[in-house]
Amino acid sequence: MNKKVAVILSGCGVYDGAEIHESVITLLRLDQRGALVQCFAPDIEQMHVVDHFSGDETGETRNVLVESARIARGEIKDVRELHAADYDALIIPGGFGAAKNLSDFAIAGANCTVQPDVLKAAQGFVSAQKPVGLMCIAPAMAAKIFGQGITCTIGKDEETAAALTKMGAVHQECEVSEIVEDSQHKLVTTPAYMLAQSISQAASGIYKLVDRVLELAQH
Amino acid sequence: MNKKVAVILSGCGVYDGAEIHESVITLLRLDQRGALVQCFAPDIEQMHVVDHFSGDETGETRNVLVESARIARGEIKDVRELHAADYDALIIPGGFGAAKNLSDFAIAGANCTVQPDVLKAAQGFVSAQKPVGLMCIAPAMAAKIFGQGITCTIGKDEETAAALTKMGAVHQECEVSEIVEDSQHKLVTTPAYMLAQSISQAASGIYKLVDRVLELAQH
Repeated sequence: MNKKVAVILSGCGVYDGAEIHESVITLLRLDQRGALVQCFAPDIEQMHVVDHFSGDETGETRNVLVESARIARGEIKDVRELHAADYDALIIPGGFGAAKNLSDFAIAGANCTVQPDVLKAAQGFVSAQKPVGLMCIAPAMAAKIFGQGITCTIGKDEETAAALTKMGAVHQECEVSEIVEDSQHKLVTTPAYMLAQSISQAASGIYKLVDRVLELAQH
Repeated sequence: MNKKVAVILSGCGVYDGAEIHESVITLLRLDQRGALVQCFAPDIEQMHVVDHFSGDETGETRNVLVESARIARGEIKDVRELHAADYDALIIPGGFGAAKNLSDFAIAGANCTVQPDVLKAAQGFVSAQKPVGLMCIAPAMAAKIFGQGITCTIGKDEETAAALTKMGAVHQECEVSEIVEDSQHKLVTTPAYMLAQSISQAASGIYKLVDRVLELAQH
């Protein structure tokens, strides 16, 4: 039987949404390994919109679900429809969207909160003891989702790691090609573009994360 | 020496821009094979903007270069800066953007024209006898770029194939996992999402296209 995996996206573009390379590499690897994938996103406005050519804010408003649908080729659902009982695992790619739309870590740091619909969906997997994969900056949500003492990585950035520690996470340094696993909580994390200097570097760790999440998934 | 490859994007999203999976898989394979990649896009408004969740037009205006920058993580240039002398090969992913922004094939069919800056850049590669890869619907531009008699594929869609034939191209049916090569003109094409039922199916043909384009590239 094919394993069913939910993927939560946070928009479409590294500076204000889901990191596109990380998202697509996740979808590619899941499909190559025979998993059945369903994408989700919160039906909320993005924190802001960034012109990815100039780097400036544009003043536009865009919806996280609608923009995430670009990565999912339209095959996406409101994260309020995500129930852990229907899936074997959850993966959340990075990009600033994880810190701006799925949570407010980009603004609030250690005092951040996770968007309520996303938090509820993710904690469903924790309660069901189903594996979760978080990449790039998404592990900034780990302590809020799993609680104190959760082990994870955001790579090697000291300031970000300090914020995670302050929230109660146990940060472990990690190379871009590797993963960190909290076996007790079935959380797998990898730095991806927190460290990657190229798309194939990002892919190296993401492939390992996807493979390990699928191994951990019961069916 | 690493081969230098130019990639022309047409926005960010299958229904009004570059197909995101095809674009990212192209960038991934090029990087995995050691190529140095530079993305380009025309600095023009998109034909229109499609809400990828609902499928409806939104009435917004978005710029092709600015939206393409999302896929390129900001590392992108105006296609007017693309000179074939600086690169060993050119690849253009698909998505409706190739038929709406890089050309007007989606509206004009066999009477289409290619956006002038894109046409000039692409024909530079033809003149220099450097390889070109076109995927998905992008081969609809082949006869305009290469002239009559060019051999290519858009998969198996009869109506689209008939339009290409009317423009003077020689259409060859092709499976999603395969490529069609016009050896004389160094054009490589693959159906990608014109036929793919999954992202890994699309990747199978795109990997072959990238590998063959790199083989054909002199350095």
